[in-house]
Amino acid sequence: MEIVGNPSVTVNNISKIEEGAPGTLSFLANPKYTHHIYTTNSSIVLVNKDFVAENEIKATLIKVENAYASIAALLNLVEQARPKRAGIEKNVHIDESVNIPDTHYIGAFSYISPNVILGNNISIYPHVYIGDNVRIGDNVTLYPGVKIYHDCVIGNNCTIHAGAVIGGDGFGFAPTETGYQKIAQIGNVILEDQVEIGANTTIDRATMGSTIIRKGAKIDNLVQIAHNVEIGSNTVMAAQVGVAGSTKIGSQCMFGGQVGVAGHITIGNNVNIGAQSGIPNHVEANQNILGYPAQPARDFARQAVMIKKLPDLNQTIKNLEKEIQALKKKLNE
Amino acid sequence: MEIVGNPSVTVNNISKIEEGAPGTLSFLANPKYTHHIYTTNSSIVLVNKDFVAENEIKATLIKVENAYASIAALLNLVEQARPKRAGIEKNVHIDESVNIPDTHYIGAFSYISPNVILGNNISIYPHVYIGDNVRIGDNVTLYPGVKIYHDCVIGNNCTIHAGAVIGGDGFGFAPTETGYQKIAQIGNVILEDQVEIGANTTIDRATMGSTIIRKGAKIDNLVQIAHNVEIGSNTVMAAQVGVAGSTKIGSQCMFGGQVGVAGHITIGNNVNIGAQSGIPNHVEANQNILGYPAQPARDFARQAVMIKKLPDLNQTIKNLEKEIQALKKKLNE
Amino acid sequence: MEIVGNPSVTVNNISKIEEGAPGTLSFLANPKYTHHIYTTNSSIVLVNKDFVAENEIKATLIKVENAYASIAALLNLVEQARPKRAGIEKNVHIDESVNIPDTHYIGAFSYISPNVILGNNISIYPHVYIGDNVRIGDNVTLYPGVKIYHDCVIGNNCTIHAGAVIGGDGFGFAPTETGYQKIAQIGNVILEDQVEIGANTTIDRATMGSTIIRKGAKIDNLVQIAHNVEIGSNTVMAAQVGVAGSTKIGSQCMFGGQVGVAGHITIGNNVNIGAQSGIPNHVEANQNILGYPAQPARDFARQAVMIKKLPDLNQTIKNLEKEIQALKKKLNE
Repeated sequence: MEIVGNPSVTVNNISKIEEGAPGTLSFLANPKYTHHIYTTNSSIVLVNKDFVAENEIKATLIKVENAYASIAALLNLVEQARPKRAGIEKNVHIDESVNIPDTHYIGAFSYISPNVILGNNISIYPHVYIGDNVRIGDNVTLYPGVKIYHDCVIGNNCTIHAGAVIGGDGFGFAPTETGYQKIAQIGNVILEDQVEIGANTTIDRATMGSTIIRKGAKIDNLVQIAHNVEIGSNTVMAAQVGVAGSTKIGSQCMFGGQVGVAGHITIGNNVNIGAQSGIPNHVEANQNILGYPAQPARDFARQAVMIKKLPDLNQTIKNLEKEIQALKKKLNE
Repeated sequence: MEIVGNPSVTVNNISKIEEGAPGTLSFLANPKYTHHIYTTNSSIVLVNKDFVAENEIKATLIKVENAYASIAALLNLVEQARPKRAGIEKNVHIDESVNIPDTHYIGAFSYISPNVILGNNISIYPHVYIGDNVRIGDNVTLYPGVKIYHDCVIGNNCTIHAGAVIGGDGFGFAPTETGYQKIAQIGNVILEDQVEIGANTTIDRATMGSTIIRKGAKIDNLVQIAHNVEIGSNTVMAAQVGVAGSTKIGSQCMFGGQVGVAGHITIGNNVNIGAQSGIPNHVEANQNILGYPAQPARDFARQAVMIKKLPDLNQTIKNLEKEIQALKKKLNE
Repeated sequence: MEIVGNPSVTVNNISKIEEGAPGTLSFLANPKYTHHIYTTNSSIVLVNKDFVAENEIKATLIKVENAYASIAALLNLVEQARPKRAGIEKNVHIDESVNIPDTHYIGAFSYISPNVILGNNISIYPHVYIGDNVRIGDNVTLYPGVKIYHDCVIGNNCTIHAGAVIGGDGFGFAPTETGYQKIAQIGNVILEDQVEIGANTTIDRATMGSTIIRKGAKIDNLVQIAHNVEIGSNTVMAAQVGVAGSTKIGSQCMFGGQVGVAGHITIGNNVNIGAQSGIPNHVEANQNILGYPAQPARDFARQAVMIKKLPDLNQTIKNLEKEIQALKKKLNE
């Protein structure tokens, strides 16, 4: 670590470099934001050690190995300094069959059903519903209004944000002469360890067996995961993605927002899918795909260019037709 | 029913054929899964009576008229064997004007407003909110955290999953010189009988009159139904569909996930709409449409093929131009 | 105001003109609905003063300056006549540090954390969660199940519909060799005055600084607003829109449903974006754009027409190739 500028300056908050105010610390990691460093009012800026200033900089610079990792560590320190909730508040509904762990927060109006098993160091915010036989691992945080239907399993170190619904019925109906008949959904949902689920996301229980979100997967807000889907380890899905039933998705994938994935297909490991893409068929590992229906991102880009040229192309073809007519006429003269 | 193999084998659970374990019963209905029957470890497999094995099968087969219907019946039996909740838990808020029916479950922290009318055999899970004057039919299940605004009507045999919001304000604002002014939404939502609504789905109340979901319609998670929409009988909508205001949708339609439908249009009966399609205009009955903007599925498929060929087509046109230039030159020699 | 027809007719409800029943008042503002005026059973129809009947009309007409504004005013009168909730219900959780304002409704099972500041004339429906240090302005309504995480700020005259989540963590993770590491999200969300937020919408807190929804913006149901986004004044977003992180959107924009907006971009003022469009890059002010990727609406329309013609165009090109071959052959004879 190297300090460039006044080493005795102090700060009491963290800010974005483009919004920096005196008394705050900012960081510069994304080169697109480099120009802000010459105008920022932040008192301190964390930069990568290879940063070379091209103009004068008011702020004190702290050069570190990895500015992004350093700011992340600082943010975590700030977060950890927030007062922690602990204990059981009044007005909770906890079935007498449930053992309360030594370390816990259980907020008012939360509801814990019979035979639920709770790990250590759990935080259950107000208005959480936990159904019968649910198992919850250690260091789990359930934010306000999370609902977990019966029989589901939440691994260690999972975080589920407000309003998410884990284990609602899969969408299964059999057509009959008098209308649709519901297929009972007797499976469950399993979140493995280190999974984070966004606000108001819905993950349906399996018809039979389990819908599974594997270790380290991160799922953003308002995502729909249908029954019997499997999401691989460390796969990341942005908001409003939808995955239809029984599809298996590999590990280390990245999904942009609003992607839709058909049912009963397989997506390999390390697949990147651009925002709003539609995936109708199997996808091999290590692809970078985009579009509706999705295809290799390079092909999509070329076709997008061509589509814009279509009116011109149409005119070119009309011109060619005329030229050919002219040629024919001339040839027949 | 015919049994092929060891008739005395016993099972204690149901599994998918591809995940079958000893002691479980599986089924085979979708021909795509046929190959699993030769390797499954399930002890029993339900198959259609016309199934003919092409290789050796370890499992005992039970041949039935319709394997899918049989497994559905079995799943329902399993579901029905789960313990049923009954009675009124402590810590509920029920207005004194409300009559409690003879058969019911009303979970802790649920809230029932003045003049609500409740049918028989209702299950109201924890954290449910029911607004003033709401009417709820017989055999209705409201899962945790369902919110029903005032004046809405829920028919018999309806199921509403966790977090769904029925009767929120339609999105109506009039532009004025000082910004948008809210248009009061004084209508309601009517769910007819046998309707199922998915988790975190939102169905807005009508500006005036009613937003109506007709008998037997099934709506998946995270769907948005705007004010004054009508959804026909036995229409099925997959997750994340959005329908804009005042649109009327026929009966027996099937919508794939993430479909978007414009406002003030009409969609006929028996229309199938592929996932992620955008529907800007009226759609006649008995169509099978797809795309953005949607068109007959066959046309969409042909155009999708053509779009992939566009770069080649562009090259072909360039070649034609050169050939014509060559011809012209030759002709002028 | 001018009355045409029986001036002594009375009504006791408001209806849409196409559903009009005797004893109700309807309005005609959208010319598309004009034909209904000749068949409606409504007893009174509000029309613009320049309306000229082309056939006989049963209903009494009231001619006004602006039929739409008049009906809006009437709807607001009806809405205001509904009984208002007031006072604090039993079974609330209010931290002792919180001052309750003079005018308020606080519903059962709502939860108010330490150091929350509440404005006058607030309505907090059941099952609302308000986190530590949240500030809420005057005349705010929070419908059932709204969740507001710590440190967020809600302006005056805001309305937040059921199930919306304000201030959940932004979706930020740093890749490491052992999987993703969470980036703490220490910022907040600010809703300025006159903002309305739809049911089950999610607005994430900033990583640092604030996610900001400016004065008068109206956001529909199931919308996702990511961390550090800014939405300009009087901008309107239809349901299921998603905006990725750090994007800045101008004022007076209109977004159709299901639009997706990339992160770290800027959209100018007065931009209209058609439903389901995808916005990958910056957009200048005063545009009308559409498509995936979005482009000027006129270009999109022309290209959509061309895409439909692609199979024909392909045939034309094949014909041209044949003609050229024929010409070449003839020329070489």
